Amino acid sequence: MFHSLQPKNKTNVLGRETKSVSQNSMKTSLFRKELKIMAPILLNVANESTDCLEHGLVHVKNPHLDFMEEDILYHFNLGTKTHNLPAMFGDIKFVCVGGSANRMKAFAQFIFKELELKGDCNDIDDICAGTDRYSMYKAGPVLSISHGMGVPSISIMMHELIKLLHHARCRDVTLIRIGTSGGVGLEPGTVVITDTAVDSFFQPQFEQVVLGKVIVRSTQLDENLAQELLQCGKEIPNLPTVLGNTMCTHDFYEGQGRLDGALCSFSTEDKLEYLRKAHEAGVRNIEMESTVFAAMCRVCGLKAAVICVTLLDRFKGDQISTPHELLLEYQQRPQYLVSHFIKKHLGLHN
Amino acid sequence: MFHSLQPKNKTNVLGRETKSVSQNSMKTSLFRKELKIMAPILLNVANESTDCLEHGLVHVKNPHLDFMEEDILYHFNLGTKTHNLPAMFGDIKFVCVGGSANRMKAFAQFIFKELELKGDCNDIDDICAGTDRYSMYKAGPVLSISHGMGVPSISIMMHELIKLLHHARCRDVTLIRIGTSGGVGLEPGTVVITDTAVDSFFQPQFEQVVLGKVIVRSTQLDENLAQELLQCGKEIPNLPTVLGNTMCTHDFYEGQGRLDGALCSFSTEDKLEYLRKAHEAGVRNIEMESTVFAAMCRVCGLKAAVICVTLLDRFKGDQISTPHELLLEYQQRPQYLVSHFIKKHLGLHN
Repeated sequence: MFHSLQPKNKTNVLGRETKSVSQNSMKTSLFRKELKIMAPILLNVANESTDCLEHGLVHVKNPHLDFMEEDILYHFNLGTKTHNLPAMFGDIKFVCVGGSANRMKAFAQFIFKELELKGDCNDIDDICAGTDRYSMYKAGPVLSISHGMGVPSISIMMHELIKLLHHARCRDVTLIRIGTSGGVGLEPGTVVITDTAVDSFFQPQFEQVVLGKVIVRSTQLDENLAQELLQCGKEIPNLPTVLGNTMCTHDFYEGQGRLDGALCSFSTEDKLEYLRKAHEAGVRNIEMESTVFAAMCRVCGLKAAVICVTLLDRFKGDQISTPHELLLEYQQRPQYLVSHFIKKHLGLHN
Repeated sequence: MFHSLQPKNKTNVLGRETKSVSQNSMKTSLFRKELKIMAPILLNVANESTDCLEHGLVHVKNPHLDFMEEDILYHFNLGTKTHNLPAMFGDIKFVCVGGSANRMKAFAQFIFKELELKGDCNDIDDICAGTDRYSMYKAGPVLSISHGMGVPSISIMMHELIKLLHHARCRDVTLIRIGTSGGVGLEPGTVVITDTAVDSFFQPQFEQVVLGKVIVRSTQLDENLAQELLQCGKEIPNLPTVLGNTMCTHDFYEGQGRLDGALCSFSTEDKLEYLRKAHEAGVRNIEMESTVFAAMCRVCGLKAAVICVTLLDRFKGDQISTPHELLLEYQQRPQYLVSHFIKKHLGLHN
């Protein structure tokens, strides 16, 4: 389809990626053997992201995009021909994402007030109003986007977000997922800043199927950013904050060892044993999006962090029976933390 | 947490499941060997669903539920203590699910009119109004629910839906997913009724990770229901309908061989080769929810079908550039088909 068009520039990201794969194949192969899982065809648990950081621009890792005359970001209802993306988004420095559309609207209104922007925070419109797949709000240099639940849902959003930031020629952007999670041995309401995002086997990796073959990507996040956010947590009174590993599963019930789904074939003791093993592996909370979020940010050289509040302690139960008002208060905690961080970076603290 | 409570009845679904696993392990083991993928711990590609069909009641496959005094369907904002589920849902015979909340609201209003129910279709309220995770509308015996995008998102909904139908003591329920998809060698706008839901490796199975171990489930759908729906398609003028396999992927871009994501490391020829192989395996469309939908319905003995319209032919492109009005018309096609089917079953055809 794109054969006949000429490239807009000569960046060949693909070439660099191929090189990084071969350099790291031996190390990664041993890693895979330990896991005893299927042989991946391409291996890129590597430092493949560093070459994207030049000039702080957001880079895509797809040479085909250079050949496209138009790029329709279908699930955002935006496009390069129909919208002036640099004018709309060129000043973005922070992108905050979370599952719920209502929560991300509330966050946009909250940060609008916190940054003391001119106008009425209630006037912020959903930029993706033409579709109900995602919601997107802009408050000054902060973009707030919902991503739905689960890895596939957030991955569609991340593809289109990274392309959007690229088309808009954004620089030095930080991405933060602010979400909810189940805690592992923590008091409900504790905020967990993710050290490493791990899969259901406690491994710091994300498996992506590409053309029927498995690619493995590293889920390592930015260490300095995590430490900086932890410091922000300490500076806010009554905001219990810890650093820990976050387990990302593809299912809320069986996948997280819940006993209360429509299907369950294991015992209470089996469940507790799995949670104990997770805790031993440093897992402090469980959610459903962090691995692909971390992996995609890493490949594209984007600074990223994951901050989730725990709604319950999974050692003590499965059902979320906390009163609605308290749940709402818990969900605001990652927002307070991120607001503190953003204001610090913008020099807005007294 | 549930130790101290007494069971409400003595059904032990778990025992039956264990038996069905051992009976089929040899056959399934050969099947897995062929696939050359990781060894599963539990194997239940088996006829494990037949024992649920007694009396037409919707059964859950979780003995722990018998010990729970209350069941909170968190993502629906419903519960067994706060809502009279049998009174609210006991008459449900058809459940239609789809990704988009707006589309599922439009479907509820459409079927309300088609069934000539009393009242104004615009008065149908979102039963899940207290949460923005899913939307749910009821029109007589038809329930219309949104499930977001991707396997994890629909799987959370399916767990809570099956429990809802169980708590409401519903009988003889048919579940139909009405969605959108990419076509493989079909004219855009063609409606595909799924013969078999297959994974990215063209296999009729769904892999579920449970407590860090892989379970494999069959994704076989109800053959008679598919044939009946195909017949309905033939009876409606200008509604091109085919029976074919549906491939379910966990990613919209790399996972479906698109060249237009933020990441892409393969060529146009690689993409086309994968699509050709898919076509040879009987795949006629690609979406992101069918395997887990089919697998969960099968385990719980629910009659299920998947009907998706194709928005483009993936052999000819990746971007969805069809005009908005035409896309809306395409999206109504599965709704017309399902409406025709439901009216036939309710004896409402002239």
